[in-house]
Amino acid sequence: MTEDLRNQDLRNQDLRLGARVMALIDDLARHTDEPGRLTRLYLSPAHRAAAETVAGWMGRAGFAARIDAAGSVVARREGAAPGLPALILGSHIDSVVDAGRYDGNLGVICGLVAAEEILARGAPLPFALELVAFGDEENVRFPTSLSTSKALAGRYRPDWLDGRDKDGTRLRDALVAFGGDPEGIPALARDPATVAGFLEVHIEQGPALEAAGQPVGIVSAIAGITRARCAVTGEANHAGTVPMGMRRDALAGAAEMVLAVERLGAAMPGAVATVGALDVAPGAVNVIAGRVDFTLDLRAPDDAVRARLVAEVEAACREIAERRGLGFAAETFMDNPAVALDAGLQAALEAAARRHGFAPPRLPSGATHDAAALAAIAPAAMLFVRCRAGISHNPAESITVADADAATRVLIDAVLGLAEKAGA
Amino acid sequence: MTEDLRNQDLRNQDLRLGARVMALIDDLARHTDEPGRLTRLYLSPAHRAAAETVAGWMGRAGFAARIDAAGSVVARREGAAPGLPALILGSHIDSVVDAGRYDGNLGVICGLVAAEEILARGAPLPFALELVAFGDEENVRFPTSLSTSKALAGRYRPDWLDGRDKDGTRLRDALVAFGGDPEGIPALARDPATVAGFLEVHIEQGPALEAAGQPVGIVSAIAGITRARCAVTGEANHAGTVPMGMRRDALAGAAEMVLAVERLGAAMPGAVATVGALDVAPGAVNVIAGRVDFTLDLRAPDDAVRARLVAEVEAACREIAERRGLGFAAETFMDNPAVALDAGLQAALEAAARRHGFAPPRLPSGATHDAAALAAIAPAAMLFVRCRAGISHNPAESITVADADAATRVLIDAVLGLAEKAGA
Repeated sequence: MTEDLRNQDLRNQDLRLGARVMALIDDLARHTDEPGRLTRLYLSPAHRAAAETVAGWMGRAGFAARIDAAGSVVARREGAAPGLPALILGSHIDSVVDAGRYDGNLGVICGLVAAEEILARGAPLPFALELVAFGDEENVRFPTSLSTSKALAGRYRPDWLDGRDKDGTRLRDALVAFGGDPEGIPALARDPATVAGFLEVHIEQGPALEAAGQPVGIVSAIAGITRARCAVTGEANHAGTVPMGMRRDALAGAAEMVLAVERLGAAMPGAVATVGALDVAPGAVNVIAGRVDFTLDLRAPDDAVRARLVAEVEAACREIAERRGLGFAAETFMDNPAVALDAGLQAALEAAARRHGFAPPRLPSGATHDAAALAAIAPAAMLFVRCRAGISHNPAESITVADADAATRVLIDAVLGLAEKAGA
Repeated sequence: MTEDLRNQDLRNQDLRLGARVMALIDDLARHTDEPGRLTRLYLSPAHRAAAETVAGWMGRAGFAARIDAAGSVVARREGAAPGLPALILGSHIDSVVDAGRYDGNLGVICGLVAAEEILARGAPLPFALELVAFGDEENVRFPTSLSTSKALAGRYRPDWLDGRDKDGTRLRDALVAFGGDPEGIPALARDPATVAGFLEVHIEQGPALEAAGQPVGIVSAIAGITRARCAVTGEANHAGTVPMGMRRDALAGAAEMVLAVERLGAAMPGAVATVGALDVAPGAVNVIAGRVDFTLDLRAPDDAVRARLVAEVEAACREIAERRGLGFAAETFMDNPAVALDAGLQAALEAAARRHGFAPPRLPSGATHDAAALAAIAPAAMLFVRCRAGISHNPAESITVADADAATRVLIDAVLGLAEKAGA
């Protein structure tokens, strides 16, 4: 989006909240581990600086803010009485390598700006309000899975502390260097009775809202994911001397499998199926491939659909391998069930969106989010925000001021609607 | 092949010549640049040691042997009169990385053992006999193409001297360090009037002779080769959030292209078509591929067939890219025409083989060989020797003593047949 377009947005309507969200996000984007592009890996110096910046903003907004034992920023403001269950707003501030600035950060800042506005309106709330900025959602640096939000959910796996990054640094040591406390992580687990709910604003990272012409959408479920590593073994041989009919070409077999994955994924409702990495050995212009390793990423919002997809993909690969005289082996290394989001919170978000004149689509999330971790202990819901061309994990990630404003106002109204329903 | 099997062969018939060939090849295999496996790159210390060993053997056989300016071993024995045109026997002693011991070396040693036997029989020849061990046939270390045999054919490209290996060493400097003479290379060019012919024994490196149940075959032509680098460009995006119908997946497109290459190659008589290398970017489990680079290697013994194959592959790739909304670009970096081998020398090899009771198939060579360089200035022909399972460029490369014996005896009889026909 160009600066001109932003200004035009601002001339046409009151986009005060959206403009503040965008300004804070732009400010936060200063914190990067790599000059010239945004890279903010879990427990890096840029992560620490961003966490301190965010904690400072939350403190100035009237929240008691701290950085917890796992590295998340957690800030609390009591409600009408001290010690009430908390409604938690937030997302994450870690990023992928060469990231966009909205993934995660948008939800943290929307929560903050919404909370500022709610407090400014002065009405006492029948729940405490908490703001969070999780630190390990992208799972890029260490072999973890939503570790910081799972710490709150009491699902932290102690062996994660022994995982290493590509430089060989253990998570445990990186966490201590960051100022965290490995031994304090178990105590972060929340008693479910103390959590009223979790609301996460996040860019869609897909093209559905843009196609629907809507600024926001309500996430119905977070897709389950199966990931596997597959190996196809044939016979490496001279590309000039082995007739086509006598080859056992691992790459030709893998190519058929890639197309089967695409075809079967497209045939299942709501599912997606991707081969994202593929390596050929020996990988020379004049040698028939002897071995191909590739990854599978199969997702569906319905676990039964995903199970059928996994079974059909595996059967197709085995049939292809057998017909071509190739070996085939698959090893599943991730099998996360789908997460249903809370119907009551979805309804609160939808009602708020409709009050603003939007017709928010219900859509599944193909990506995993911190909300999936929190859903284990509390009602959780997500508000998706339209992003340009569905582009994410990329510096070209882009949203409009108007959409940031819409998301913030919908979040405010949803919180106030929940307050009205719950208390007073 | 096991030692037991070798001994069994030896008990059953007189395999004296084959046993000597195998013993010399085993001895030569000592010379490697990497302990534990056979790697003998052009101008390496192991290449120098092997060249000196071979030159020593040729000298002891009664030949005037030297290592020439380009690093080839060249040995000459005059015929019935000094200065007669030479019939050259040989192949190469450089190897790929982690090579088998027969590729190239077999032809050098068969030539040597055949020459020993011919001289032992004592009849004067109406041509000089030369033995060669070329040094740069595999073209693994430097960006060259049959440089040492092309030096004899007067086709050496001076810019090859400026090519560098992966450590940055220039061919020119490596050649000087080896003891060669870059400035002396032009003078290696032979006057075609001084070369009576070139006969090269070589393992088939393919499965055709094994399938035919024959120890040797006559090469009809050396296939022409087209090589290209292809790039498929799509859009990298989140594997969880982009519906199947809205993707521009470069890997799915490339997979279709790989299968088209395989299908079109199989449909052309005598042709082979291979995608041997393929790289995916960004290459992550959860990211739809944005770009795929792959290589094409298309060969046929008939240039018209190859031209049709190249055109059909390119058209198929363009159709696939267009249908999928992908970019496609191809850059040809090799376009070597097919080389017809000499009908008279083929007939001499065939007659010799039939005298030994064999029924040698005529078959094209999909691989390039030094004979392709020599064919530019002299009649050239090749005798292929059966190898186990068609395996080559691999430590599992294997031939039998009986087949080494057969090849050596066929070569002897072919030389004597040519002598009879030419002179006396």
